Parts: sequence; C-alpha cells; structure tokens
Amino acid sequence: MIKSVLIGILCGAAVLTAGILIGHYGIDKSSDSAPTWVKDLSKDVDENLLEDLLSELDNKRIEENLRELTKVPHLATTAGDEQTVQLMLNRWRDPETGLDQAWREEYMVYLSFPDPDKPNKVTVVSPSNGVLHTVIEKEKAYTPDQENPAVVQPYACYSPAGQVQGKLVYANYGRASDYQDLSQRVPLKNTIAITKSGGTGRADKAIDAAPYGILGVLVYTDPSDINDGFMSDANETYPHSWYMPPSGVERGAYASTYGDLLTPYLAAKEETYRIPLKDITGIPPIPIQPIGFEDAYMLICELGGEAAPAKWQGGFNCTYNYGGPGFRPSSAFNNSDVKLDIFNYGEVKNSSNVMGVIRGAVEPDRYVIYGNHRDSWVHGAIDPSSGTSVMLELTRVLGKMVKQGKWRPRRSIIFGSWGAEEFGLIGSSEYTEQYFTKLSERTVAYINVDIAVQGNASLQAAGMPSLQNVIFKAAKQVKAPGLDSMSVYDKWIRYSNRTSPVYGLIPSLRYLTGAGSDYAPFVHYLGITSLDISYTFDRTKTSARIYPAYHTAYDTFDYSSKFIDPGFYTHQAVGKTAGSVLVRLADSLLLPMNCSDYAESLEASLDEALSQFENPLLAMNISMEPIKHAVASFRSASNHLEQVIRSSDLANETPLKLRTINDQLMLLDRAFLNPVTLGKFRHVIWAPIQITTRTFPGLSDAYAGAMSSGKASAWAQVHLLVSVMSQVIEGAAHMLRDVI
Amino acid sequence: MIKSVLIGILCGAAVLTAGILIGHYGIDKSSDSAPTWVKDLSKDVDENLLEDLLSELDNKRIEENLRELTKVPHLATTAGDEQTVQLMLNRWRDPETGLDQAWREEYMVYLSFPDPDKPNKVTVVSPSNGVLHTVIEKEKAYTPDQENPAVVQPYACYSPAGQVQGKLVYANYGRASDYQDLSQRVPLKNTIAITKSGGTGRADKAIDAAPYGILGVLVYTDPSDINDGFMSDANETYPHSWYMPPSGVERGAYASTYGDLLTPYLAAKEETYRIPLKDITGIPPIPIQPIGFEDAYMLICELGGEAAPAKWQGGFNCTYNYGGPGFRPSSAFNNSDVKLDIFNYGEVKNSSNVMGVIRGAVEPDRYVIYGNHRDSWVHGAIDPSSGTSVMLELTRVLGKMVKQGKWRPRRSIIFGSWGAEEFGLIGSSEYTEQYFTKLSERTVAYINVDIAVQGNASLQAAGMPSLQNVIFKAAKQVKAPGLDSMSVYDKWIRYSNRTSPVYGLIPSLRYLTGAGSDYAPFVHYLGITSLDISYTFDRTKTSARIYPAYHTAYDTFDYSSKFIDPGFYTHQAVGKTAGSVLVRLADSLLLPMNCSDYAESLEASLDEALSQFENPLLAMNISMEPIKHAVASFRSASNHLEQVIRSSDLANETPLKLRTINDQLMLLDRAFLNPVTLGKFRHVIWAPIQITTRTFPGLSDAYAGAMSSGKASAWAQVHLLVSVMSQVIEGAAHMLRDVI
Repeated sequence: MIKSVLIGILCGAAVLTAGILIGHYGIDKSSDSAPTWVKDLSKDVDENLLEDLLSELDNKRIEENLRELTKVPHLATTAGDEQTVQLMLNRWRDPETGLDQAWREEYMVYLSFPDPDKPNKVTVVSPSNGVLHTVIEKEKAYTPDQENPAVVQPYACYSPAGQVQGKLVYANYGRASDYQDLSQRVPLKNTIAITKSGGTGRADKAIDAAPYGILGVLVYTDPSDINDGFMSDANETYPHSWYMPPSGVERGAYASTYGDLLTPYLAAKEETYRIPLKDITGIPPIPIQPIGFEDAYMLICELGGEAAPAKWQGGFNCTYNYGGPGFRPSSAFNNSDVKLDIFNYGEVKNSSNVMGVIRGAVEPDRYVIYGNHRDSWVHGAIDPSSGTSVMLELTRVLGKMVKQGKWRPRRSIIFGSWGAEEFGLIGSSEYTEQYFTKLSERTVAYINVDIAVQGNASLQAAGMPSLQNVIFKAAKQVKAPGLDSMSVYDKWIRYSNRTSPVYGLIPSLRYLTGAGSDYAPFVHYLGITSLDISYTFDRTKTSARIYPAYHTAYDTFDYSSKFIDPGFYTHQAVGKTAGSVLVRLADSLLLPMNCSDYAESLEASLDEALSQFENPLLAMNISMEPIKHAVASFRSASNHLEQVIRSSDLANETPLKLRTINDQLMLLDRAFLNPVTLGKFRHVIWAPIQITTRTFPGLSDAYAGAMSSGKASAWAQVHLLVSVMSQVIEGAAHMLRDVI
Repeated sequence: MIKSVLIGILCGAAVLTAGILIGHYGIDKSSDSAPTWVKDLSKDVDENLLEDLLSELDNKRIEENLRELTKVPHLATTAGDEQTVQLMLNRWRDPETGLDQAWREEYMVYLSFPDPDKPNKVTVVSPSNGVLHTVIEKEKAYTPDQENPAVVQPYACYSPAGQVQGKLVYANYGRASDYQDLSQRVPLKNTIAITKSGGTGRADKAIDAAPYGILGVLVYTDPSDINDGFMSDANETYPHSWYMPPSGVERGAYASTYGDLLTPYLAAKEETYRIPLKDITGIPPIPIQPIGFEDAYMLICELGGEAAPAKWQGGFNCTYNYGGPGFRPSSAFNNSDVKLDIFNYGEVKNSSNVMGVIRGAVEPDRYVIYGNHRDSWVHGAIDPSSGTSVMLELTRVLGKMVKQGKWRPRRSIIFGSWGAEEFGLIGSSEYTEQYFTKLSERTVAYINVDIAVQGNASLQAAGMPSLQNVIFKAAKQVKAPGLDSMSVYDKWIRYSNRTSPVYGLIPSLRYLTGAGSDYAPFVHYLGITSLDISYTFDRTKTSARIYPAYHTAYDTFDYSSKFIDPGFYTHQAVGKTAGSVLVRLADSLLLPMNCSDYAESLEASLDEALSQFENPLLAMNISMEPIKHAVASFRSASNHLEQVIRSSDLANETPLKLRTINDQLMLLDRAFLNPVTLGKFRHVIWAPIQITTRTFPGLSDAYAGAMSSGKASAWAQVHLLVSVMSQVIEGAAHMLRDVI
C-alpha cells in the first residue's frame, strides 16, 4: 500500500512536472512574449570584448602602416596623395579586416602651389641690382627623403604671386600690434618685413602689414621658439636630434578661414558656383614667403636702425634691430633691398576624402565619426600619418571583429580620411557642407586623431567638457607607453592638471577653440561634440611650441622612429585610448556625455568673464545678469537631467526614454550655434579665437575690440554678444529640461 | 479496477492540467516575458476614438467662444488683449476640460500706434491753406461695436510720423513698376501718391515711392477689388451685406519682414540687445496712410492729367487720371495739395503668447504644434477669432478626454495662442527664436488655423506636399457644413483641383510661399513642415480678394454670424478637419508625411523652371543639370524609403526602426534651409516670394532680377542659387536614403 501510494505520488509528481514543463515551454505566451529585439536594445558596452579588442592593437603593424604611408611625399592632389587614397581603400575593403563599406568622395577645390618651373626666390640686391645673397630654395638633404623630387618647395600657400623689393625691417611676430609699434619707429612704406613664426595667424602677418605700405613679408621660425636655441646641423639639429635643421621651413596655409575658398557653405562639386577670386577674403594681399633660420640669421643680424626691445629679441647671437629701414651701414648689404620673386599660382584640383563605415546594429542612424586628414606637406610622418597609421590599425581590429561576426556596434561608426587639410581643413569642411543636415541631426560625436604622437610624455586631449568623463575612463584603461605601473591617465594628471570643484585634481582637458585640425568644421560649423586626441612631449624640458620638424621636409619615418616614438608604443597607446573612446561612444546604452561637466566649464568661464569685464561693461550700461541667469539655468537643467538618469532603469524602461535622453545629450552642442551671424565660427562657447583666454572667446574678442576702439558700434557689438550668449546658453538649458 | 484506473487517469489528468497551468501562469518567463511598454509602443491611431472625439466638437460652443472673444477690440498689448489672455488661460487651466499645463510667455516688442490725442489727418488744402476736404478719421458706426472707444484709428503700422503735402498723383497699386511707368508721364518730385491696396507688399508702396521724391502715400481698397463694385451703404454694403462700407479701412503692418524689428534672430526679452531704430530695414521711409474708398473717390475722380491706362482703372464711376500732378483745373480742388499729418509713434510693449500642452505618452519629445494668433486689429471676429474659437473648442474636447483618462496622444501636442501677429507675426516669431534648437530638433509639424472661416464654399489648405495625404484623409472624414451627402473633400475637389500624375484629379493643396500668418517662422525660419487650414468663399461668385471686412472695424461677431457662417457649421467643419489632422499627426505610429508627394511637387516645380528659364540660363553658361540631378536623386530616395516602409512590419519590429523612419520624415524640411544666407526666408523651396510663380520662388526671383538688370553680379546670384538649390535638394535626398 505504502509502495503503491509512493508510486502514485511519484507518478503524480512526474505528471505534474511534465505539465509544468509543457505549460512553461510548450505554450507560447502569445501577446506576452518578448519580441526578439528587446534584448538587443538594452545591451551596453561589453567591457571584456573591449579589452580584447584593445589588446589586439599592434605597435609593429602601426609602424609598418607608417612606413607605407610615408614612402613618398603626399601633398594633397599629387600622385603621392593618390597612392594613399588607394592604400586606404584597399585596407578598408579588405574581405577579412575591412569595413562594411568604403568609398571615395571627390571635391574640386581651390589650392595654391609654387611653380616648379619658376621657384620662388628671395634675394638681397644691391643698388646696382647685383645679387648679394640668395635664400636657399629647398631644404638641405640629410636622408634620401629630402631628395625626392616631389618635395614641394617651401612656400606660403595662398600668397599672391608678385615681384616686390624694398628695404628690410624686422617686425617681431608680425602681429597687428607689432606693426603698429614698429611704425612709430621706422617709416614702413615700400619696405619688406621679416617676421617670426607664431604669435598670430599666418595670413595675418601679411594682412596686417599691407595697410602700412609694406610690400612683402618673410617668415622664419626663430631657433628660440622651436629649437631651444640650437642652430648647428654639425651636431645639434636633425639628423642628430629632433631639432629643425638651419634650412628647415614650416610650410602652411595662409588663410584666415577654413574650407574651399571659392565655395563658402557649399560643397565644392565640379558644377558648384564659385565666387570670383577677387572676393576671397582672409588671404595675404601682398607676397609672403617662409624661409629657414639660417637665411633669416643672415638678414636680421645685418639690419640697421635702433635695437628692438627685449621682447622682440630671439635666438640669434646678435641684436635684433628694427632696420633703418634696411641694413646697417657697416653691412655688406648696406643700401641693398630684399627682393621677393613669388610665382605661386592657384588651381582648382580634385581632392578626395576616403570614407568607410561600420553599420550600427541597433541605432544605425546615430553616427560616431572618427577622422584624420591624409594629405601632408611633405612626407608627413607625424602630421598626419601618425594619426592615419593608428586609424588603420584601429579599423583593422574593428573590421576583423565585424567580419568574424563577433561584434557590431550599437551605433554606426563613420571613418573619414580627409583630403587637403593642410590647405585649410578642406576635405572635412566640404564633407560637413555636403551632408550638413544629415550630420547635424545624427552625429553623436566626432573624434579627431591627427598628430597622434609628437612626443612620449603625456596624453594631450582637447574637447567639449561633456566628453571629459569618457576620455578619462579610456585613459585609465590604457597603460602608459613603456610603463606597466602607470596608466595613460596617471601620466596625464602629472603632466597637466587642474582642480575641479567637483572632482578635485584631474587631468586638464583642453578647449577646442581653434581651427588647427579637422575637428573645426564639426565643432564650429555644425556644433557637434568633438574630441582631439594626441600624445605630446614634456614642455618642461623644451620650449618648442610644436615638434621641430612640423611642416618641413624632415617630418619623415626616419625622424619619427628615431626621435618621436622608437618602438611605436606611444602610437599604440594613443590607438587604445582613442579606440576605447570610440567604442564607448558607439556601444554605450546611455551616451557617455556628461552635461554637468559642461555646466562646470560654463561656470568657470563665467567667473573668469565676470572678473575680467563685468564692471567695465556695467560702466557702459551693459549688464551681464542675463549670462549669469543663463549659466544658472544650464546648471539647474543639467542637475535635473542627471537626476532623471540616475533614477531611471534605462535598460528596462521603454527604449524611447533612453533615446530621448541620448538625443538631449547628443544635440546639446547644436544649441550653442550663433543664430545671428553666419560664419565658419558659430559655436559661441568656443569661437572665434582672436585672443587666447579661458573665457567665452567671442565675447572676450568683442570686449577687447571695444576697449581698444572705444566706438559706440563696438560696444553695441559687445551688448549684442551678451544677448546672443545668454540666449544660446538658455537654449542649451532647454534641451536638457524635461522634454515637455 | 476500471474505476480505479479511471480515477487514476482523471487524477493524473487533473494533476497534469494543474501542472500546465502552474507552468504557464505561475512561473515567470523571466528574460522572455515582454516588458509592459512593448504594447504601448506599437499603438496606432484609434479611429473609433477619433470619430468620437470629432463628434464632440460643438458648433454652439464655437459660437459662444466667438461671442466671448469679440466682446471688445483686442489689439495687441491693449486691455482687450489682456482679457483674451485671461480667457485662454482660464480655459486651458480648467480642471475638467483643460490641458496638462498652460502658461503665458512675454516678450518686449516694438510696435507702432497712432496717437489717440493727435489723430492722423489727411486733408485737401488750397493754395491759401484753406482746408477744402478732410478724410474721415474713424470708420462710420453701424452697430455699437464701431462706437467702442477702443477701436484704433485706421493707420499704416510702422509708417513714420511726419507732415507732408504735395500735388496728388495716382499710382495704381504702388508697385515699383507702377511708379516707374508713372514717372515717365508725370514729374513725381514732391508729390503725394494715392494707391490701391494689394498688388505688392504694403511697405513696398512707400519704399518704392521714395526714390522718385514722392513725399507721402495714401492707400485705399478699390471697390472693384473687394466689393464687386458695390459702394453704397444705403442698401449695398454692410450691414446690408458682407461688403465693405465706404468708410471701411484695411489696417495692416507695413513691414517687409516678420518678427520683432529691433531684435532680429533673438527673442525679444526685456534685457535683449536692440538695434538702433535707424537700422530697421523694410519699413516705410515716408509717411503712408490708408483711407476709405469714399474719400479715395473724392480725390481720384478730381485728378487732372492724362487718363491712366485701362489696367489702372478701378470701380469708381469716373476716369482714373494720373494727376497733373494734382487736381484738374475744373475741380474745386484745383491747385490744391493733399496733406498728411501722421502722428504714429513706436513703443516697446509687453506682448504675450499663451501656451498649453498635452504631454505625449510614448514620444513626449516629439511635438505637434497647433496655433493661431490671438490679437486683432479691432474685434477680429474672423481674423483671428474664428480660428481661436475653433481652437478653444478643440482643446476643450481633447482636454476633457485627457482629464477623464480616455486618451493621451503618442506625441506631445503644443498649443500656441500667439500675440502681436498683426504687427508682423511677432509672437510666433519670438517663440521660434527663443526655442530655436528645441523646436528644430523635436517638432513634427505645425498646424495654423487663423482665419478659420471666411466663407462656406470650400476648404482651402496650404502646406508642404508631404502633408497632402493627411489633410485629404481628414477632409474625407468630415461632412461638408450643412450637407449630409458630401464630405469636405468632395466640396474641395469641386472648388479647387489639379491633376496629379499619380492620383489623377485631386484637390489643390496650395503652397506656403508667403508670410501671411504665423506659419511663416515655422516654415521659412525653422524649416518645419506646416499646414494652414481655412474655409473660404466661392471665388466664381465674387472677385473680392479676401472677405471685405478684413482688418476693418466691421469684422465683428455680428458680421460673421450674419454673413459668413450663420449657425457656425463651417467653423465646426474646420474644427473637425483640423482636429483630425492634429490627432493623426500626434497618434499615428508611422508619421502621416509622404515624401513621394514632395517629390511630385519638386518635379512639377522643376518642369516649370526648365520651361521658363533653362534656355536663357544656358545662354549665360549656367546649367540647370545639377537641379535636375538633385530632383531625380530626391525621387529615387523617396521611392526607396516608401519601399522600406511598405516592406516593414513597423508595429512589430524594433521601435527604433520606426523612430528612425519617422525622424527621416520629420526632419526632411530642415534640409531645405539655405545654408549660404541668413534671413527670415530660408526655405529654398518656398521662399522668398517676390514674384508669384509655381516654381522655386527664390530662383525665379533671381532670374527675373538678372533679366531686368542684366548685371553680371545678378547672373552670378542666379548661378549661386542653382548651386544652393541643387545642394539642399540633394541634402534632403540624403535624409531619405538608408541612414548608413
């Protein structure tokens, strides 16, 4: 009996179990069962996969990429440039390690070149027209690289052609104030000015000279600004060290704006309307030419006239005089002129961007864009190929994971290899102009890695404050190059830091105020949150304002592998850091963009602005209360949004709630665009950048302008800017508030 | 045994059943069970609920709303205006039928008024300074409404004050070409011109007169343009009919742009920077004053000089002469001047928008905006209170359903009761300026119902072609006023139709090219898809260009209820039609915005443009191929998107796919904004509107300008516009393509 009861119970239990199993698995919960996409929508960054991915980034492959990229000079639109186009396309179309798609996009853009048949000349000519000195035309060769016939003669891109001659004067950095000071001492009409690199925009050195009747301008890089004073190529400069050789010349675009100069605000397609050449603004009105410091030394040390003040002196072992104008009577050049024969010509040429994409799995209409330019002045091993060699390794690793089916990002990733950046960020600008609305509406962030490595001391990052958190996270995740005990973050915080009221001591994320690389059209034209990442040298050990081979024929694989990053461990670290930021932006459920860090930055800028000019403005009846109110609104709105985020279970609530919050974060910077003035510098928090201050640059510029001119119209401009700034900051706050 | 076996089987079956039930209901399928939000996300328009909702809209309540709204004149910023602010707030805050939230938003805006203490005067003065005739200062009273002391004297808003006198000339409609023609016949220096209403912008009649030395301008509405020639108030005009009485005067804003004139592109807050008055552009440089046709008759029929050509003649029973200049010798006014004493003054005053919202349940960050202005020139029974009385009934019905918990829209609905529209769309403009980014990024569509009813013949709708389908659907759903057998759509297609290559004969949806009401800042400044809805009279039965009481003191409840819509059934039909559009835009799973209808419209515009000016442009070396290519791109992209939509099961696929497509549709019009020029007319497909053509108005204007001036710079402008248009249309096509 007990047995049959036991059997009965066991049977009953078995039947019950069977029933339970059938009930649970066998019958579909019809309307209750979750659609398959529910899980995908709530997937966050996979930290293990990210670690695997970063560990795949190989320094040797980066080194090989760089060697390949720098075999020949690849000045925009030349045959060397086309080789790099093909290289990018081949890599990004590789069936095993390529991207989902890759293609080229072409633009017809206005460029400026020296004439290979009539090289630019700078000479000292005696009153009897004898040539007493000729500035060397090409940089001296120390390796076969410099002997490559494709090395472009040093020139000032967009300088007009022209033959001018006159007595030489020395104008320090060629700033407006320098010419103003100089004009008090020396009659400037019909002179040639020699100026030092830096201190102001390249084109400004000619633009601000012309009103004084100066006929032409020379530019050179003073050894005290770039070489810690070292001048001798016998044992001091490259190839003995990273310092610039005496004949080295920094090339560059001499233009005040960016993008194709003939098609402002429009993509430069073949059929696009072009403004007349005479309507181009912001380029030199008079010939200007850069020269090496060995020739500058010959000229400056022979100058007559009074001694220039201490601040104007430089690295040469002579006194820098103003010029009589002209050379001193005791000089062999006495009574001689300096003559510029400039044969630059403009040409509309076909420049390509190479584009590649990885399609997003969940939100394909959200783009994270990662880019760098491809063109260089000469071989460009550091600028830009350090960035490109890193990008190629990153796309190889990501592409492989995609091809193997191991990973697909939540959002789409777009890679851009921009053309003709050296001529004024042209490829990236045309891209933003062509796809204006699409990019404005869908881009989460832009990451720029141009000069990836110009030293091995520390990460140097610049970007919107909302990205501070994600770059910190990435930097903590990556070991500092060559060190096992320290992270990139640890080195960074030692090298450059600040005290945040919220976080205490943290690395200093710089501001993207300038237009130094391809982030500019994204930041200043589209209002897209951006980040620029590089590794730099120790500024306590050198006063060089940039690596000394910058824009010269010495920026080669040889230079980089010997003096910048032997072993390419720093390139690798930059790749890992940038890769981590990229994947976090692409994969995070909640966008890693922190609006309260933006608030902290606005508050700091406001404090600085108040201390600098609240009282002077009040004296002109301009109140800064509206900006104070706006910044407080922004703070309260960002606190509120963060509270909403903290109190939400975003992985489990409706995916539209997450999308709403992500859109608020993504579109925040769009609200900062100036609605009152068109222009290529419309982000009112970071542009324009006439003066270097840590506070609202547009307003600071206007204030400085009004203080110096005293004009009512200039003060009206300040007042207008106070209104613009307060209204755009309020507008940004509206983006963060509850959406209805 | 059988029994016990049976019992055993039964027990076993019971246990199995219990197991199945436990398994199915008792055990959570954990990760497999659908979150509660899955169902909400896929809800579409509930057609039954929509029918219920529309059937609630009550003509009697609309009538009572109108009576309440028009008790006193409610010129912007006056006490009468404030009464309507309170009325709106009370209704929208009603605990049983109000909205989720309602509030006022205030702006300090620059307005222009006549001086009540020194009324504007127009007189005929003899050479000895005797006053021979004085134009009547206020419109004649036929009902107590006109006797209200708050009726503002007829004036030309933004005309400068000034005393001017001179010989009278007749200048037809005061178009630039009219003055040009007239100047060939009569010396115009120091004259006063009398002009007919219409034909050009109000301000242009003075702006285009000034260069000829004309000192002042009069404007009147010719009986042939508004009254089918009827002139007598003994038995022909109001209160005997809807026709304008002889002393009736159309008031209006005399400004060429819209929005507060002192704070372009910025919200006119108290602290906002204001431009100097002298920098205002687009307003009359010389005094201008509107007068009734009884006075115009006295003046025009006395004019000397040659007879004006047939096209210049009007409804008076005399020949319209040019003027000698001045009156004919046989006139009692011989040798007399006409004198204008204008005392208008400008003042910055506080104007309010009243805002109300219904929060969206699923996509609260998507806005459907429905609005109308609240201010009127006098009582404004038709303009704008017909629209406001309908809006109040619509918000009552929707609000009640929300308060009762029966309905909440998928997207948020924002209602706007705009201030100071009559002074230049000021309230709506300031709103778009204040919330620029937020509205740009989140607004699905704007619906404007201003003059809801000015007749009972037919619906008249204007809007972007993408909304054609939804307004058709709504119009089919609603019975034509007073008819059981015909829908609003049926009457519309009889009244105004066109043959579409796709649909055959359909009602003609007009284009929103102008700036006639508050849709303009949404369309032309923000690029938001918009629709303007009204009911109009039968234009085969009258040549009136608008209802004759427009902007006069006769636009009253009495007038509307007797001559426009007795019984208020037409108001009701407009409310139902607009309500259906509103709910469909707010509730549809897939936004009811059809991109291929946009493509059809672009193709029609292109065909027209090609036939009008492809050859003349080719002769100037300007190819229209880029626009052809762009329109073809747009067509192919829109076909593709529709194919994607057709092949998708949007209710069951990931909600982010639906959101992506809806964003593509929502943001389409943003891509049409001109990136090259700032301005209040930036939508290149619909603006600006100098000439009335069915094709790309900006390009047509530029072409007409180049043809008339022949200048190279004017042809360059045409070429630039070809590039702008082709690139924005390509940009719009990019928005419709696969997102990556």
